[in-house]
Amino acid sequence: MPTPSSRDPHVTRTSALIDPDGGALVELVAPPSDREALTQEASTLPSISLKQIDIEWVHVLSEGWASPLKGFMRENEYLQCLHFNCLKMEDGSVVNMSLPIVLSITDQEKESIGAKESVALLGPSGGPVAILRRIEIYPHNKEERIARTWGCTAPGLPYVEEAITPAGNWLIGGDLQVIEPIKYNDGLDHYRLSPHQLRDEFDKREADAVFAFQLRNPVHNGHALLMNDTRRRLLEMGYKNPILLLHPLGGFVKADDVPLDVRMEQHKKVLEDGVLDPETTLVGIFPSPMHYAGPTEVQWHAKARINAGANFYIVGRDPAGMGHPTEKRDLYNPDHGKKVLSMAPGLEKLNILPFKVAAYDTVAKKMAFFDPSRSQDFLFISGTKMRNFAKSGENPPDGFMCPGGWKILVDYYTSLQSEEAVAKTTVGA
Amino acid sequence: MPTPSSRDPHVTRTSALIDPDGGALVELVAPPSDREALTQEASTLPSISLKQIDIEWVHVLSEGWASPLKGFMRENEYLQCLHFNCLKMEDGSVVNMSLPIVLSITDQEKESIGAKESVALLGPSGGPVAILRRIEIYPHNKEERIARTWGCTAPGLPYVEEAITPAGNWLIGGDLQVIEPIKYNDGLDHYRLSPHQLRDEFDKREADAVFAFQLRNPVHNGHALLMNDTRRRLLEMGYKNPILLLHPLGGFVKADDVPLDVRMEQHKKVLEDGVLDPETTLVGIFPSPMHYAGPTEVQWHAKARINAGANFYIVGRDPAGMGHPTEKRDLYNPDHGKKVLSMAPGLEKLNILPFKVAAYDTVAKKMAFFDPSRSQDFLFISGTKMRNFAKSGENPPDGFMCPGGWKILVDYYTSLQSEEAVAKTTVGA
Repeated sequence: MPTPSSRDPHVTRTSALIDPDGGALVELVAPPSDREALTQEASTLPSISLKQIDIEWVHVLSEGWASPLKGFMRENEYLQCLHFNCLKMEDGSVVNMSLPIVLSITDQEKESIGAKESVALLGPSGGPVAILRRIEIYPHNKEERIARTWGCTAPGLPYVEEAITPAGNWLIGGDLQVIEPIKYNDGLDHYRLSPHQLRDEFDKREADAVFAFQLRNPVHNGHALLMNDTRRRLLEMGYKNPILLLHPLGGFVKADDVPLDVRMEQHKKVLEDGVLDPETTLVGIFPSPMHYAGPTEVQWHAKARINAGANFYIVGRDPAGMGHPTEKRDLYNPDHGKKVLSMAPGLEKLNILPFKVAAYDTVAKKMAFFDPSRSQDFLFISGTKMRNFAKSGENPPDGFMCPGGWKILVDYYTSLQSEEAVAKTTVGA
Repeated sequence: MPTPSSRDPHVTRTSALIDPDGGALVELVAPPSDREALTQEASTLPSISLKQIDIEWVHVLSEGWASPLKGFMRENEYLQCLHFNCLKMEDGSVVNMSLPIVLSITDQEKESIGAKESVALLGPSGGPVAILRRIEIYPHNKEERIARTWGCTAPGLPYVEEAITPAGNWLIGGDLQVIEPIKYNDGLDHYRLSPHQLRDEFDKREADAVFAFQLRNPVHNGHALLMNDTRRRLLEMGYKNPILLLHPLGGFVKADDVPLDVRMEQHKKVLEDGVLDPETTLVGIFPSPMHYAGPTEVQWHAKARINAGANFYIVGRDPAGMGHPTEKRDLYNPDHGKKVLSMAPGLEKLNILPFKVAAYDTVAKKMAFFDPSRSQDFLFISGTKMRNFAKSGENPPDGFMCPGGWKILVDYYTSLQSEEAVAKTTVGA
């Protein structure tokens, strides 16, 4: 942990639109004046229908989370990503890029494109969302992509089953031009702040440090403890106005994760109940889909937040990890995420804040940092255990989560059980 | 391809013992005066018995082929290797390191080591070969290692079956001190020149360019054509004395590859028959075992040759590739090897010379560069086809290989068939 006196000047925040290496944030949404012409042009081009995860990647690319990427990866970028988890830029600088951001097409789609240089990307309604230009089509070796990204090819990896196994045999890369900003119209779009908007907001609040917390689970008091403790440490380091970016992942998650709308409701309660301070916290949705690719994915999670103006990143045990899909063990060594993150090329300027382990202190009756000298007093409540409490309507120990936040979860699991009961009755009838 | 006028000064050869980044070549063999004391010390330490491939890696490490590695990888190096194919050094420089150079131990061996800081490594005869110091033991996640190294976890990868599947559940890293130079006493040790010896030899010959050719197959006239053509191109570029390092791999190869002693005999004939010029060619054995890991391994093959003083590297179609072990296709895209090599961090100063494709020209009755305008005149003779010719005693087309070299192969396959016939008779009896 750097001290104020030894602090590298690079770790101070940079202003909006300039990434930490001094490059401009690449945004790919066309100006409103061009939209009609682009829509017209799209109607003349061969087209590809996007799936939901593809739309999420178009969203990610369009706002510059993956800057300096200018579109879906061509083979040159894909190979660097798979083999080196980073891209070398023309000026010799290295940027981190650990997950392949690629678009697959089928043999038929490839044939229909022929020798054309641009294609239209169509949304779920069939309307054009974007144009991909100076395209390059190359083979989609799924086995190799999966093995190098996950370090595992066992069946049951959620992103693989959703987006790779059923995908086409070709990848298509090119420069992306998005016709208008991606919206979901699910009542949560106001949370979907772009890196540009986040940087502007941090500037408006005169933040001198931004610490990001990536999550895809409800916030319990253990999370809150470490976020508040991080703020305290940053103040001690000499920062005057550290701002927390509470940044739930908004794209694809596996079926048994808590859905985004429930999580957002829960996060709102946590702020309303004062567990986190709204004055020094900014809640936004990170539009990326989830890979559950552990040490490889945590780099992406951190890199995208740098693009959004963060200069501190909180990393816990087994980030972006999950159980092995076919064996009774964690898919990744739980320590590898933070180790790999600390070694990752292109992330040298990010300050990584390793998690202290929080657990329920049965004596103090609250979440507290684990004290190994009295380990018998601590209770570890896993995500699975938490979900089981909520499903059974049983209350977790006092002080595990604020009551307003907990109620959201209980209501969600109750509604889920009612739906399941109705479904069963219907099937039985 | 750089021209003499635009040539980067870094691509000129550096003198012995200084690697291209200016660091010293790390050699790990103890001076003769220390051998007795080390042997004595080894007898007091917990010990690990090395397998043949482990010995090959000790050999590789001891001579500095993997410099700046000072021994088997600790977890910090292993993770960087798996995720980034390179290591970041303390001074911020990046060195290429694409294959895990690791030593596995069993649960029992781990237990026997306990909290000791050093272990003795024992050779096949049971005598001590080396001491590993400041050891670190960490889990050997075989699935992840295989997936990230090969981009494939299908059964049947030769190195995996030989050295990983049967290996222990732990890896042990540390600083290696080798008691005396590794020798094989197989009549080929005089070919096993260390990077230090090779550099001295290049200096002695006043080479101003060294171009390396990695191979694990017999040399046919197509190979010779491109090596001779490379020399011609280097002379055209303004080099006065380019030397070819003909550098067959000497460690573990898969069962159906031609054995090292036969290959060395064949290479010798190729030089005797004047297909390659002995004056401008240096033949050495590269002691590394073979992974058949395509784009990941070709980086290792190139990096090790830089350490031996090469500044040009010839790379062909599908380097270090093989057929997929369970599917009817190449394991790797045949173009990826040279693409990945050209992108690889830490290899920027190596000049990569891509292969032109050579094939048998049935009109000119010799191996020639393939001319797509008269493709019907060319015959592609694969390794498998070549082996089948030799096995059946059939002659390949005139001019495919020099007669002396071809005879070596025919004799080898004939002896193999006699052995098989004897084995069958014995089983039948």
